[in-house]
Amino acid sequence: MEDTLELARTLHAGHEQLPLVLRLIANTGVQTRHLVQPIEETLKHPGFESRNKVYEAEAKARVPEVVRGALANAELEAQDIDMIVYVSCTGFMMPSMTAYLINTMGFRDDTRQLPIAQLGCAAGGAAINRAHDFCLAYPGSNVLIVACEFCSLCYQPVDIGVGSLLSNGLFGDAVAAAVVRGDGGTGMGLERNGSHLVPQTEDWISYAVRGTGFHFQLDKRVPGTMSMLAPALRTLSERHEWDVTGLDFYIVHAGGPRILNDLSQYLGLDQETFAHSRTTLTERGNIASCVVFDALNRLFEEGKVAEGARGLIAGFGPGITAEMALGAWRDPAQVPAHRLHAAVPQGRTAQAQERAAAV
Amino acid sequence: MEDTLELARTLHAGHEQLPLVLRLIANTGVQTRHLVQPIEETLKHPGFESRNKVYEAEAKARVPEVVRGALANAELEAQDIDMIVYVSCTGFMMPSMTAYLINTMGFRDDTRQLPIAQLGCAAGGAAINRAHDFCLAYPGSNVLIVACEFCSLCYQPVDIGVGSLLSNGLFGDAVAAAVVRGDGGTGMGLERNGSHLVPQTEDWISYAVRGTGFHFQLDKRVPGTMSMLAPALRTLSERHEWDVTGLDFYIVHAGGPRILNDLSQYLGLDQETFAHSRTTLTERGNIASCVVFDALNRLFEEGKVAEGARGLIAGFGPGITAEMALGAWRDPAQVPAHRLHAAVPQGRTAQAQERAAAV
Repeated sequence: MEDTLELARTLHAGHEQLPLVLRLIANTGVQTRHLVQPIEETLKHPGFESRNKVYEAEAKARVPEVVRGALANAELEAQDIDMIVYVSCTGFMMPSMTAYLINTMGFRDDTRQLPIAQLGCAAGGAAINRAHDFCLAYPGSNVLIVACEFCSLCYQPVDIGVGSLLSNGLFGDAVAAAVVRGDGGTGMGLERNGSHLVPQTEDWISYAVRGTGFHFQLDKRVPGTMSMLAPALRTLSERHEWDVTGLDFYIVHAGGPRILNDLSQYLGLDQETFAHSRTTLTERGNIASCVVFDALNRLFEEGKVAEGARGLIAGFGPGITAEMALGAWRDPAQVPAHRLHAAVPQGRTAQAQERAAAV
Repeated sequence: MEDTLELARTLHAGHEQLPLVLRLIANTGVQTRHLVQPIEETLKHPGFESRNKVYEAEAKARVPEVVRGALANAELEAQDIDMIVYVSCTGFMMPSMTAYLINTMGFRDDTRQLPIAQLGCAAGGAAINRAHDFCLAYPGSNVLIVACEFCSLCYQPVDIGVGSLLSNGLFGDAVAAAVVRGDGGTGMGLERNGSHLVPQTEDWISYAVRGTGFHFQLDKRVPGTMSMLAPALRTLSERHEWDVTGLDFYIVHAGGPRILNDLSQYLGLDQETFAHSRTTLTERGNIASCVVFDALNRLFEEGKVAEGARGLIAGFGPGITAEMALGAWRDPAQVPAHRLHAAVPQGRTAQAQERAAAV
C-alpha cells in the first residue's frame, strides 16, 4: 500500500484528481500484493507481444507447482483427472495452457480441455460451476481447475483516468488451482449452481482490445452493483430452499471493499461474514478469478467448518455476471465411520469436492 | 479461387516459393469463400484495435439473424435456452458476445455463458460436446451454440511464409448457430463424446500474439496429423461398441483437402464419405469452428438420413486436439406414432438434437 501510494504520487504528481485517486487506493485496504515481475519491469510497457510472452513463460513456470499442490490436496493423480478448466483473462495463448499441462504433467490425452478467457473475475465461479456440471453429467469424474491471473501484465501507462489509476492500485497477480472430485474428499459438496447477468451493464467492466494489449475499463457504477446481485444470490438460495442470510460460510469475489460492505448490508449480514474474502483483498489485492480460491483456501486453513455446514461461493465479473454455487461441507474425518456410507448422497446430487491451493 | 491465385501472383510476384504457394492454394480446392469485408479492406491492416472493432461490429450485426434461424429450426424460443456456448478465435471481446445476445435477444438473465476462444477449429466440436454434457447434467435443458469466425480479420500482410500464404488462400468467414435440445427435435442424438490431444504438437497450429493481433502459424506437418487422429476416432467408437468404419454419416472438420483424403484412407472409407465436409471446403473455405455446423447443415438439407442412422462429428484444431461426438439420427417424422414413445431413450442417454444454420 505504501509503495503504491508513493508511486501514484510520483507518477501522477500533476494529475488533477490525484487526491481522489490516493483516497480511493487507500480505501481499497489492499496492504500487500504479489506481482509477477519486479515493479520496475511492471511499469514498463515493452509491447503486447513481449507482455504476452512473459505471460506464457511465467504461467508455464508457476502453474505446475500449484497444480501439484491441488492434486495432492485432493489425493488424486494427474491420470485421475477427466477435464481441465483453465481460466485466465490476462494473457492469451492458443493452444491454451491446457495443452501444455497435458503434455508436461502426465494428464491423459483424452482429458477434456475447457479454457475460458472472457469471463474475467467471474471465471473462478464459472470454473467451479462448469466442473460441477461435468461431475453431474459423468458421476465419479474429477475436474482440475486452474486460475492464472497476471493482472500486472495489463498495466497500461497511458490510461490515467481515475478508474484506471484505482485499478492499478487494486489488482494483484496469482495462480490458483482446485480439484472438484466426483466422489470422496473433503470440502464443499457442490449442490446447485447458477448464473446471473445484470441487464444492460456490458460496458461497466470491459476490455478495450488494442495494439498495446488489453485495456481494463472500470465504470464508476461498478462498486454499486451489489444492489443488483444480492437478489440473484437470494433467488438461487430460495430455489434450493435455503435462506441466503443464514448460511454458515460465504466465499465471495473481493473486487473491492465496497462490494463486500454492500453485499453484507443488502443481505443483512454481519461485516465479519466475508472475513476470508476481505483477508484475500487485504493480502493479495483483487486477484480476479483467483479470489474465490484464495478465500476458500483460507476457509480450509482455518479448519473450523463443520460437516454439513451450508455455504455459498460467488464470483462477480464482466457482463456484469455473477457465477454462484451452493453446497454443504463434507469432511469424512468428522463423520463417525458407521455413518459414512449413509452420508454419501444418492442419485444426481453432486459429490464434488474442492481444495484450493493458491500462490 | 481465381481471384485468390491472381492476388497471390500480384502481391508476391517476387516470392521465391511462389510456384509452390500457387500449387498449394490450387490444391485446397476452395472455389468460393465469403469474407466479412470487401477484399480491398481485407488486405489492409489498420491495426489490431481497428480490426477488433470490425470484429465486434460485424459479430453484433450478423450473429442475431443466424441465432434466430437456429432457434426457429429447433422450434424453441430464446427463453427456452439454458446455456449459450459462443466459440470464436478470430476476435476478442470481454464481456463476450454471450452478454450482448442475452441483453438484446430475449434470453433469460440466468442463461449460463460459456465463451471459448482458445480451441480454434476444434471449438465447433468442443461446443457440441460441452452442450451435450450440460444436457446430461440437466436433463431437458437446451443449449444454443454460436460459432463466429472472421478469419480474414487475422490476415497479416507481413507474414509471407509458405504456411501463411497457404492459409490466406484457405480460410473463410462464417457465422453458424445450432441448438442442442434436451428433448425432442430432429437431428443427431448425441450419445458419447470425447477429446484427444496429440502429444507434443502444441506448436504445430498456434497463434503468435502481437501488437498487430493474432498471427496464425501453421506447421507443414499438420496435414499429416490424421495418422494420429484416426486411431482416436476408432478408440472412441470402440468404447461405444461401434465400428468407426461402418457409420452412416461423418461430419468432420475440413481443414484442408489432405485431412479429408488421409482420414478416409486411414479409416478405410470411400472418398465420398466426407462429401458434405468437402463441399463446405469447396464453397466456404476452411471456416474454422463453423465447418462442422456448415457440413451438418448440408446433411439436414440433403434430407436422406434415416431414423437411427449412426454418425460421427469431429472437429480438429490446435493442441493438436480432436473433439469428437457419436450419435444416432432422430427424426420423429420417420417414426410411426405408436413407436414414438418407445423410441425415446431412457436414463442418461443424451436426448440432444442439433440443427445448424450457417451463413
